[in-house]
Amino acid sequence: MNAKHLRKLLDDVKSGKTSVADAVGALKAPPYQDVSFARVDSHRDLRCGFPEVIFGQGKTPVQVARIAKEILKHADKLLATRADRAAYTAVKKVLPKAKYHKVARAITYEKAPSKPSGKAILVVSAGTSDIPVAEEARVTAEIMGNKVETLFDVGVAGIHRLINNSPGIQAANVLIVVAGMEGALASVVGGMVARPVIAVPTSVGYGAAFGGITPLLAMLNSCAAGVTVVNIDNGFGAGYVASLINRTDEDR
Amino acid sequence: MNAKHLRKLLDDVKSGKTSVADAVGALKAPPYQDVSFARVDSHRDLRCGFPEVIFGQGKTPVQVARIAKEILKHADKLLATRADRAAYTAVKKVLPKAKYHKVARAITYEKAPSKPSGKAILVVSAGTSDIPVAEEARVTAEIMGNKVETLFDVGVAGIHRLINNSPGIQAANVLIVVAGMEGALASVVGGMVARPVIAVPTSVGYGAAFGGITPLLAMLNSCAAGVTVVNIDNGFGAGYVASLINRTDEDR
Amino acid sequence: MNAKHLRKLLDDVKSGKTSVADAVGALKAPPYQDVSFARVDSHRDLRCGFPEVIFGQGKTPVQVARIAKEILKHADKLLATRADRAAYTAVKKVLPKAKYHKVARAITYEKAPSKPSGKAILVVSAGTSDIPVAEEARVTAEIMGNKVETLFDVGVAGIHRLINNSPGIQAANVLIVVAGMEGALASVVGGMVARPVIAVPTSVGYGAAFGGITPLLAMLNSCAAGVTVVNIDNGFGAGYVASLINRTDEDR
Amino acid sequence: MNAKHLRKLLDDVKSGKTSVADAVGALKAPPYQDVSFARVDSHRDLRCGFPEVIFGQGKTPVQVARIAKEILKHADKLLATRADRAAYTAVKKVLPKAKYHKVARAITYEKAPSKPSGKAILVVSAGTSDIPVAEEARVTAEIMGNKVETLFDVGVAGIHRLINNSPGIQAANVLIVVAGMEGALASVVGGMVARPVIAVPTSVGYGAAFGGITPLLAMLNSCAAGVTVVNIDNGFGAGYVASLINRTDEDR
Amino acid sequence: MNAKHLRKLLDDVKSGKTSVADAVGALKAPPYQDVSFARVDSHRDLRCGFPEVIFGQGKTPVQVARIAKEILKHADKLLATRADRAAYTAVKKVLPKAKYHKVARAITYEKAPSKPSGKAILVVSAGTSDIPVAEEARVTAEIMGNKVETLFDVGVAGIHRLINNSPGIQAANVLIVVAGMEGALASVVGGMVARPVIAVPTSVGYGAAFGGITPLLAMLNSCAAGVTVVNIDNGFGAGYVASLINRTDEDR
Amino acid sequence: MNAKHLRKLLDDVKSGKTSVADAVGALKAPPYQDVSFARVDSHRDLRCGFPEVIFGQGKTPVQVARIAKEILKHADKLLATRADRAAYTAVKKVLPKAKYHKVARAITYEKAPSKPSGKAILVVSAGTSDIPVAEEARVTAEIMGNKVETLFDVGVAGIHRLINNSPGIQAANVLIVVAGMEGALASVVGGMVARPVIAVPTSVGYGAAFGGITPLLAMLNSCAAGVTVVNIDNGFGAGYVASLINRTDEDR
Amino acid sequence: MNAKHLRKLLDDVKSGKTSVADAVGALKAPPYQDVSFARVDSHRDLRCGFPEVIFGQGKTPVQVARIAKEILKHADKLLATRADRAAYTAVKKVLPKAKYHKVARAITYEKAPSKPSGKAILVVSAGTSDIPVAEEARVTAEIMGNKVETLFDVGVAGIHRLINNSPGIQAANVLIVVAGMEGALASVVGGMVARPVIAVPTSVGYGAAFGGITPLLAMLNSCAAGVTVVNIDNGFGAGYVASLINRTDEDR
Amino acid sequence: MNAKHLRKLLDDVKSGKTSVADAVGALKAPPYQDVSFARVDSHRDLRCGFPEVIFGQGKTPVQVARIAKEILKHADKLLATRADRAAYTAVKKVLPKAKYHKVARAITYEKAPSKPSGKAILVVSAGTSDIPVAEEARVTAEIMGNKVETLFDVGVAGIHRLINNSPGIQAANVLIVVAGMEGALASVVGGMVARPVIAVPTSVGYGAAFGGITPLLAMLNSCAAGVTVVNIDNGFGAGYVASLINRTDEDR
Repeated sequence: MNAKHLRKLLDDVKSGKTSVADAVGALKAPPYQDVSFARVDSHRDLRCGFPEVIFGQGKTPVQVARIAKEILKHADKLLATRADRAAYTAVKKVLPKAKYHKVARAITYEKAPSKPSGKAILVVSAGTSDIPVAEEARVTAEIMGNKVETLFDVGVAGIHRLINNSPGIQAANVLIVVAGMEGALASVVGGMVARPVIAVPTSVGYGAAFGGITPLLAMLNSCAAGVTVVNIDNGFGAGYVASLINRTDEDR
Repeated sequence: MNAKHLRKLLDDVKSGKTSVADAVGALKAPPYQDVSFARVDSHRDLRCGFPEVIFGQGKTPVQVARIAKEILKHADKLLATRADRAAYTAVKKVLPKAKYHKVARAITYEKAPSKPSGKAILVVSAGTSDIPVAEEARVTAEIMGNKVETLFDVGVAGIHRLINNSPGIQAANVLIVVAGMEGALASVVGGMVARPVIAVPTSVGYGAAFGGITPLLAMLNSCAAGVTVVNIDNGFGAGYVASLINRTDEDR
Repeated sequence: MNAKHLRKLLDDVKSGKTSVADAVGALKAPPYQDVSFARVDSHRDLRCGFPEVIFGQGKTPVQVARIAKEILKHADKLLATRADRAAYTAVKKVLPKAKYHKVARAITYEKAPSKPSGKAILVVSAGTSDIPVAEEARVTAEIMGNKVETLFDVGVAGIHRLINNSPGIQAANVLIVVAGMEGALASVVGGMVARPVIAVPTSVGYGAAFGGITPLLAMLNSCAAGVTVVNIDNGFGAGYVASLINRTDEDR
Repeated sequence: MNAKHLRKLLDDVKSGKTSVADAVGALKAPPYQDVSFARVDSHRDLRCGFPEVIFGQGKTPVQVARIAKEILKHADKLLATRADRAAYTAVKKVLPKAKYHKVARAITYEKAPSKPSGKAILVVSAGTSDIPVAEEARVTAEIMGNKVETLFDVGVAGIHRLINNSPGIQAANVLIVVAGMEGALASVVGGMVARPVIAVPTSVGYGAAFGGITPLLAMLNSCAAGVTVVNIDNGFGAGYVASLINRTDEDR
Repeated sequence: MNAKHLRKLLDDVKSGKTSVADAVGALKAPPYQDVSFARVDSHRDLRCGFPEVIFGQGKTPVQVARIAKEILKHADKLLATRADRAAYTAVKKVLPKAKYHKVARAITYEKAPSKPSGKAILVVSAGTSDIPVAEEARVTAEIMGNKVETLFDVGVAGIHRLINNSPGIQAANVLIVVAGMEGALASVVGGMVARPVIAVPTSVGYGAAFGGITPLLAMLNSCAAGVTVVNIDNGFGAGYVASLINRTDEDR
Repeated sequence: MNAKHLRKLLDDVKSGKTSVADAVGALKAPPYQDVSFARVDSHRDLRCGFPEVIFGQGKTPVQVARIAKEILKHADKLLATRADRAAYTAVKKVLPKAKYHKVARAITYEKAPSKPSGKAILVVSAGTSDIPVAEEARVTAEIMGNKVETLFDVGVAGIHRLINNSPGIQAANVLIVVAGMEGALASVVGGMVARPVIAVPTSVGYGAAFGGITPLLAMLNSCAAGVTVVNIDNGFGAGYVASLINRTDEDR
Repeated sequence: MNAKHLRKLLDDVKSGKTSVADAVGALKAPPYQDVSFARVDSHRDLRCGFPEVIFGQGKTPVQVARIAKEILKHADKLLATRADRAAYTAVKKVLPKAKYHKVARAITYEKAPSKPSGKAILVVSAGTSDIPVAEEARVTAEIMGNKVETLFDVGVAGIHRLINNSPGIQAANVLIVVAGMEGALASVVGGMVARPVIAVPTSVGYGAAFGGITPLLAMLNSCAAGVTVVNIDNGFGAGYVASLINRTDEDR
Repeated sequence: MNAKHLRKLLDDVKSGKTSVADAVGALKAPPYQDVSFARVDSHRDLRCGFPEVIFGQGKTPVQVARIAKEILKHADKLLATRADRAAYTAVKKVLPKAKYHKVARAITYEKAPSKPSGKAILVVSAGTSDIPVAEEARVTAEIMGNKVETLFDVGVAGIHRLINNSPGIQAANVLIVVAGMEGALASVVGGMVARPVIAVPTSVGYGAAFGGITPLLAMLNSCAAGVTVVNIDNGFGAGYVASLINRTDEDR
């Protein structure tokens, strides 16, 4: 409810079009649905440009399916992350056309297929083990209507693999760099482009990688200026932000 | 040097227009200038869209001035961050029109004034002590050609200060949120908008704020999906990324 | 044993009412019961206003039941936290009317039903996954004789959910705020009320949430002044302190 | 602005008593004063029961004095913490009757002397070096209208000093325990009373005390159930919460 | 090999009793037995006053039994810690009279029963869950020939349990204090006695106990001067050091 | 592709031996093979002196076997580390002569047996539990063509075991020291030799060993100057570097 | 006050020798002296075998002198640690015969010279920079009546320096090992003796020594069993405990 | 004293050339010089290939000069690191030809100039601020007789600066990579060469660089296999190890 809506409502109250009781109700009505164990944020699409996303971890398959159904009452698309196959099975019962992305551990559903925008998001990843996180980023950006390209297994220990792909890297509008271990890939890519780079540290590694703390710190200290960072293994967050950046004015 | 340039060069070698020796030279020539204590990256403007920025901390005033002059041989703008007044005095001798931004501790210089783009970057900060970092972000985004607005001292302990400004917050194209202590402001702002939010943790606070670790961690764990994070007190990085995001195609 | 008791005892010794041997015994008698593997603190009800509470984790069902029985020799109420169903089954054998609170993982028992006091404790929680900890707080405060209300799933990423409930929030006498991830909810609620807020960080989250360290630090650094903090996932502690605060003089 | 206020306003709009433009203004007016470098939260007294408090650290004496004056436009009392003598001198110029509390490093001012409430807050501290933090708690609680008693230098290495004072300890309505090093005092006091204990870890100690991390962690893990914790060296926070707890209904 | 032995050897070389080759050998001969996967330190009894102790964790039952047998070739006693029942079964096959201490998870064996020395070691523990570590300390000190007494479940939240036992506490020659959570017990006991206190932090606790880091830090910062600390859960180390301290000159 | 190669290629372009198209291709051809889930770095043998090594952890047996086959298309040797028996079974199907090293959890394969060089690498380890890491180092150095000797179970608590082996220790050309717990062995060995010592901290230990952080820090702070450190449990890295150091010029 | 004292007092009450009022007084009299900013623990000599020690850091010279005088009312000896020359000057005014130990930064005073006991405490230190901490341990143990020997600068990088001193090391009754950097000295010495070793980590070192955390962790994880640890730089604590251990029964 | 020396001594004892008393003396004589505050390790040159090095930090100029003189009694070269100009002035008085390396903060002295070996050590550094550490590495390697080359300011944000220098990088026999911030340079260089890379993290950076922890962790987790790591800012250690690696057999 912004200032314009408010003025309209008050005008309607003055003119009698809307009763005081109704106006009080409108001004107090909660923009969310209470589903006993959750309050589905039905305003989020309006407010943030995409409906609420289900974080599947720690929820039962039944809860995921229930919330999915609730979200689709007010939205056209659905994304559930960190969802295992059991959650997918439960969702499929209520949404037979829902898709499961195995590597990304994500469920998506669209009432109508969306056309990806003209400019591309590029997801770059360092090693084979970083692929699930990279895929989560890809699936997220795609369901949000973007054209997404990927460039996997191009870690800095063989820098020529990156250099060989520099035209593709420089063509992207937004870049997502996914890396574990020492996370150096974000700095190298960041130094090659004039576009925003979203770095995703992963928990890949062992010993002093400390479950992703090392690449997280390395990425925060990147000597390349265009790099921002999201939480460890947060492929979803990276895909989401990349999508917000990639949107053209018409998309809003 | 992309594929098109390479093909052109090789055609010239074949036709004799360019000698083999010249081609070897061209393919090997270092795209940087050696200034004894630094290699100024003269390609960066081309590659990253903005000339190299001087990180003033740990450099002598003479070094800052020397690098500043070198950068301006190949670029039209200059930004030096973490620069004290002594550095500014040294720079002013060689660049009389250089400006000093006291609160932001930054030096800027433009050969010709730039026109800010149509869409605005909004810098939001939580407390009075966060302002220097917020200002560094503002100065950076402005020298990079953006229209920048600010909304300072709107910490979450008085949430109405934020709510009251929500139209302004929702109008911004990119948002920078600067906060120390518990860094909650990033999550609240992130939940109010459909645009990318760049969170800058600051070292403001005491005790268990641990010099910025607490807001850094809080921002990385933001429950709002559109938030990415830069290093503690890194106002420059936030301004830089915001600028990359804010650019329209014509700017590139 | 306070000064009055001491004087009375010494008077009795002087007058011969109490023998020296008995007085030595009284002055030395341990105010606890030795149950081989535990010393049940039978004075605690007198000293701290509530009988000893059983921390079920790491105890066998038989041990829990045995201690439960011992406590009820000197007390009218029982609370066992972090108790699984096996512990409950064992307790039920000796206390058939004991209740099990599944989500809270708690066992309670009252010899006689207590009437909740007039003022309410409000338990607020950020996400669905924080509910078990919030429930532990609720069960604890209820068995200690308080009226408890709850407001779940109102995380700060949708700040309107909180704002919409501000009358209820402001009506509470004591507030418990349960949140994981970045823990920002405590600061926002703390800024809305003039009553004490007890913040409970939870281990909900992943990556740089570090099992609750992030919300713990955030809550300790809250920019709202009325916030104090208990250990990660310590719903019991929050409920207990809230109850001490909520007591009227008559309750003591 | 609660529901009652809203209804009244809308009724006035309907009846024409208030114009739509005025109502829009009232609904949008910011409840804070903009002082260029700060937004003084003039609603806080209403909302949180005490006017905004000045955190002096990192502010110039002139800024402290300026904000002090602004706060007193809407409030009857003033508290500035972490204020050095220079800040006091500046404040004294505009508020000649302001008091300086040297050990606590605090400035207070009251338009009219307040009568302390009947029940007492007890501030207990472990060592000589913890006194400044304990004093900050005392000054805070007193300016907020409480009767405060102190019991200093009763660390657990000489447990008899505590035991000897147990009647005084048990008589308090709220307790603040201030300790550095291993912070054990909070647990011992917590086990002696049936009232809430607010634990304040201090940065007193060396080596593995890590500037207060050790007592902070110890207090969070207190085996006594009635203990909550505030930030390291946060005497103000402890005094503030203790005061919220100590208030009788009439005070609100 | 001391100076006397050296002189004797050289005299023998001079007189021809010992060949140069043998002397070189003697001066180089390794004082240990090679058991393929381990070098049993057969000198340790002589050097350190007790034979090598088997740390069972990470060893197969067969390895434990094999090393046990090897140790007893040169020693009269055996101690294996962190040994599960499978290890005990394997040891029992080769040493039918070996004893298993279930709670302490330790195996002991003595060729001949030892008489405990006159002075007592007292093992004090805070909670029920600390008992396994306390028992490991007890078993270790007993197999090393000491009289050991125990005082379990006397945590500081009920300080009277400790005070009531102060005569027993003050009578001990060496004290071992075992505690998890905030580890305050070590400081309180340390302040009650004029004898060395060995503090053993345990991994008992949750959340910000961080697997024993909190009591470890608290014990290292004890405000009582006679306290030293061993590793988390290291009951063996505490029992071993207590035994070294408790020995009379005759024992050496 | 170095300068010599480049000149040769350009000469061939000039003379017409190589077409422009082919030269562009050669200059752009990726020096790696794309195997869907991995880009095998077929240049690494040329560039780094040993083919790419398979890090088995987190890869399926089928993936390990598939990459193994790919690597051997361009190399004569194979090493797979952190490989379980299932991976070995899969590799054996495609490479019947592959060897499995159980303790080291490594798979090796050589088209033709290599002759170890004259100088020896010595692997020293502190305890029985450190042997798997030490063995990984040994297997790595051997497959890379080195003579390797081992000296296991010589921890510093029995310093004579080390002193007795000092001739062997001093004869080595490169030393690898593998130790957990306090990691002191690296310093002691480092002080005995005039050759490089590569220290490998292991995750062996408990409590305040923190999964290898303690020996890692200790080794980084070694008071002996010739010590460098690799990641926790990284026997492979130590063997690899030792091999690079041990190579004679002829090997390169 | 033990059971014997209590019985005597009660008998006197019964017989009328002591009035009830006096008995109440005796049972309640605080065993400490209140000096406004400190409660001097006048019972500590009786309870812990040595009078209260002044920790000079953070106290003004006047405070140190004032407490010193108070302590000597009930004790024959004085020790003040972390005392600078200004503190000494202040103490000297009231105690002209007080001694200052410059390297150890300690003040001592004895009413009558004590005779050191027969057995020796040996203080071993690793490097030149560790000497101040080692000296604090020496001064402490000496003022407590012990014979103390020192062996400085024998770090493990030159293990022969230790081996050459092994007879002296083995002759000591208690050992204090002071070391920074990797702290390996404690393990090596611990493996050479059958007596208790008190390890003192120092803040000597740089980088990953983290102000003493590294040697602290290393010492806690010592592979030698007879090692216990005190806080970083806590030479006083080590000297104090060593003294408690070294006492013969006659000393008590 | 190695086996050869020992045999010779025993032969001399047998033949009567050396008396038993002398042999006992020789076998017991301490291979170090006692200089009151230090034991100069006069055997180190023999044992480790280079005389003891003076770590200047924390030593007075007089101490540095005194130890320098002592070292040169048994050695031909001198190196003092972390030495300020005052230390140099003191050393110059006793060694007029000593050299001071200002950037590296090191003092060197050679009785006779050494000829650098044929193969080169290359020191690579990331930024201008890393140069002092890089210079310390260079000075160390040079005084140890090596040819050293440098390549400064080639951080990964401008990867072409590195690629352009790849022939020089690949020609080095040993590489030292010095970098702060995210330390990615070590991984990139490590992937370009077949020679050992010694990585030196520096304390350059701010915020989440944590004084060098971030590059330290990043380097330990390098995805390039030939990388080992030394302590933060430890240029000396890197130069020392590089020198040990670079030595040919003739040098030993």
